[in-house]
Amino acid sequence: MTESSEHHYTDHVQDHLKQVESLLAKHALVEEVARKEALPREDRHALIDKLVHKQHLTMLRSKLDDMHAADIAYILEALPIEQRLQVWDLVKSERDGEILIEVSDSVRESLIATMNREELSAAAGQLDADEIADLAPDLPQSVMRDVFKSLSIEERERLRSAMSYSDDSVGALMDFNMIHIREDVTLEVVSRYLRRFDELPDHTDQIFVVDRDDKLKGVLPLNRIVVNEPEAIVGTLMLTDIIQLHPDDKAETAATAFERYDLVSAPVVDEDGKLYGRVTVNVVLDYIRDESETDLLNQAGLLEEEDIFASVWKSAKNRWVWLALNLCTAFFASRVIGNFEGTIEKFVALATLMPIVAGIAGNSANQTTTIIIRSMALGQLTQTNASRLLFKEMAISGLNGLVWGGVAGLFAYYLYHNVTLGLVMMSAMLLNLMVGALVGLMIPMIMHKFGRDPAIGSSVLLTAITDSGGFFIFLGLATIFLVH
Amino acid sequence: MTESSEHHYTDHVQDHLKQVESLLAKHALVEEVARKEALPREDRHALIDKLVHKQHLTMLRSKLDDMHAADIAYILEALPIEQRLQVWDLVKSERDGEILIEVSDSVRESLIATMNREELSAAAGQLDADEIADLAPDLPQSVMRDVFKSLSIEERERLRSAMSYSDDSVGALMDFNMIHIREDVTLEVVSRYLRRFDELPDHTDQIFVVDRDDKLKGVLPLNRIVVNEPEAIVGTLMLTDIIQLHPDDKAETAATAFERYDLVSAPVVDEDGKLYGRVTVNVVLDYIRDESETDLLNQAGLLEEEDIFASVWKSAKNRWVWLALNLCTAFFASRVIGNFEGTIEKFVALATLMPIVAGIAGNSANQTTTIIIRSMALGQLTQTNASRLLFKEMAISGLNGLVWGGVAGLFAYYLYHNVTLGLVMMSAMLLNLMVGALVGLMIPMIMHKFGRDPAIGSSVLLTAITDSGGFFIFLGLATIFLVH
Repeated sequence: MTESSEHHYTDHVQDHLKQVESLLAKHALVEEVARKEALPREDRHALIDKLVHKQHLTMLRSKLDDMHAADIAYILEALPIEQRLQVWDLVKSERDGEILIEVSDSVRESLIATMNREELSAAAGQLDADEIADLAPDLPQSVMRDVFKSLSIEERERLRSAMSYSDDSVGALMDFNMIHIREDVTLEVVSRYLRRFDELPDHTDQIFVVDRDDKLKGVLPLNRIVVNEPEAIVGTLMLTDIIQLHPDDKAETAATAFERYDLVSAPVVDEDGKLYGRVTVNVVLDYIRDESETDLLNQAGLLEEEDIFASVWKSAKNRWVWLALNLCTAFFASRVIGNFEGTIEKFVALATLMPIVAGIAGNSANQTTTIIIRSMALGQLTQTNASRLLFKEMAISGLNGLVWGGVAGLFAYYLYHNVTLGLVMMSAMLLNLMVGALVGLMIPMIMHKFGRDPAIGSSVLLTAITDSGGFFIFLGLATIFLVH
Repeated sequence: MTESSEHHYTDHVQDHLKQVESLLAKHALVEEVARKEALPREDRHALIDKLVHKQHLTMLRSKLDDMHAADIAYILEALPIEQRLQVWDLVKSERDGEILIEVSDSVRESLIATMNREELSAAAGQLDADEIADLAPDLPQSVMRDVFKSLSIEERERLRSAMSYSDDSVGALMDFNMIHIREDVTLEVVSRYLRRFDELPDHTDQIFVVDRDDKLKGVLPLNRIVVNEPEAIVGTLMLTDIIQLHPDDKAETAATAFERYDLVSAPVVDEDGKLYGRVTVNVVLDYIRDESETDLLNQAGLLEEEDIFASVWKSAKNRWVWLALNLCTAFFASRVIGNFEGTIEKFVALATLMPIVAGIAGNSANQTTTIIIRSMALGQLTQTNASRLLFKEMAISGLNGLVWGGVAGLFAYYLYHNVTLGLVMMSAMLLNLMVGALVGLMIPMIMHKFGRDPAIGSSVLLTAITDSGGFFIFLGLATIFLVH
């Protein structure tokens, strides 16, 4: 947690981006001029050195020195790859570590790819154990060995344990920057102890009170230190009814606790109740933002966030699983239609109407699934109320079937002046909407039962069923009632 | 900010929900027994009083008294309406205010509907001005008049200003619980001043330093108070390079600043630089969670979050706009197909294949839009790189068109042994994927240009274009090359 209080915060990072872009453009222009003038190689270099390195790049470098690591990360993410690497070269190497932590996974990859073993080891060496653990998946083995060697025994132990927890566990969110005290001392003693620090770790809103065996007894908010008299004893002021997280808990548990109880930091204890680490709100905030982005990306069938300047090839691969899956379900739906070619030949209007039946049920089922996934995420779905919800969703889709199925039936009648066709249309809509509600409810619940994340893949399955089901119901009814 | 430190935090709120449900079930059972025994009305009441109110409800009430307001809110949200209101009746009335703040909008409505003017005025009276402003849209005018009368002049002014900001502005996130000091005093003096408080406002990680005219000069983190000697002067310790928010800023600006700079609180100043309020991280966390949920709901075409136990009618209305819009675009697509009925009659295989062309382009365009909306939200999309992105997305969809269009073309050839059909299929896929990429990029950019939220409505438009466009391209090509 290297806090960079010497770097300026900014309200207008977009303006910085524009300035960086314009300085890079000027730099590119001068290079271009030098090239056009067809100067001999050395002269050209000399010219560039003189004109550029002395001017635009110097300005850029000093601008970057002033900026907060998170702002530099933002600018790196918004720049195309060659300009990104130009800027990355200008960043002071002692800030490499904190910036690598801030950038998104895909952009981090592109930066790490340009660094050699020494640079990477040095960058990782600037970080705390929990931060190194975050970088670890992107670092070559050799670099990790260097880093390990350079750490103290305690730090090694921390790094090893931080790396042992899965990405979505509390262990992955945890850091080790906690201050602990004993319960039998006075605030006076605590204050003297705290004054030995130059600075407290970020997000120290409370100090952890432990016993001789490091077992967590309570927490003492800084708040209470400043409003109480120095003679007060820690044990009488500390809070004992506190949230305790465990490193194996799901990260979502921590997020819910922080949201619900408005926490700034929370202690993490091991199975014996010993203080082990802490989670802070800034990490939780990043986790929540990441999760919600992942949800949105997954819903659109993207495997992971994309560096917008990644190669066409890399981006395409990120999107292919989804497209391939959808193509398979589309092929299947197409074969369902294929079985009714005879019916369509006799009554071609069916071909024009069938996408309506499939599409609307897909939309409606998707609404049901979204509601159910949300209720499951909030833990509101219990066995007591599941059947009630099923009933409700079926009722809604029944209502929708009558209303929108009715509208679609009238549409069909109006176009083809065939009452039976209108009724077939309406019945098919009604039935397919109810099928949609049923599977829209069951798919996420079954996935949840088997421990899968229902947000991933639900929608492909849903579409497959409402499409193929819609074609089958509509064309099947038409075969029975319309074609003799 | 009525912090309820006397109420227990819990790691297992789901267990509480189960216990509440079981107590309610027991209560219902006893009532049922009493009814079945067909006792005279008075005796029955006496029996229920004795058996139930003395037992289960008392247990329930004491359980609720122990619980954190946020946990009660969670339980209220997870209970069907009649049981929810039973629990709501048991909650101590002096906690009504804090709980109303915690529950979701739709559940809040259902609770407020059961309260009379006096109860509502009392509940609102327990809250701070910024919290009352959050409730205001759901309260009847008469209650708001009562509340206004009961406030001090300063509080009235705050309430009025808090209510004047739009939902997505910093003003709506702001509270007024800040502590301010002058820069020429020593930490000793600050400490003495702070000890006059029983408790500091929640999330006080820093104290604001203002001059005689209330202009913000800097901030003094509590951290610095505890690590420095009492003789130190505030002016020499305070941070002056700080984030300052303005009440008219977009809430998203505040969220980005909190995320990027890991803030716990930030000052809000007016146009003259006077300290006006503050924003705290817990409010930002809630805002981010709400926003991400709204994004997910909107993507599925739900107007707002649904109380899962709302009436069928209410839920249906929440979903209708979307279904109606999609029905319109489906009708339009259906008419596009209708124009090619002659072609389909001659070549019925087209009817089985056309949904593939429309569907895959829709999926691919949706991926493009998601990437673009995310880049715009992060402010990464600049004029410099927009054309680069367009080129890239077109290249990806060209690649996808060749690969997946090729697969689909082979599929068509394999089924119908017609080379021309296979080529028409492949060309149509390629063209429609490129149309999808183009509109998938342009729709959010145009919406953004006109100040609309691109996350809302983009997908209906997209589907309309890729569906109708797909049918038109595929059937059009088929008419030209297959049917003579």
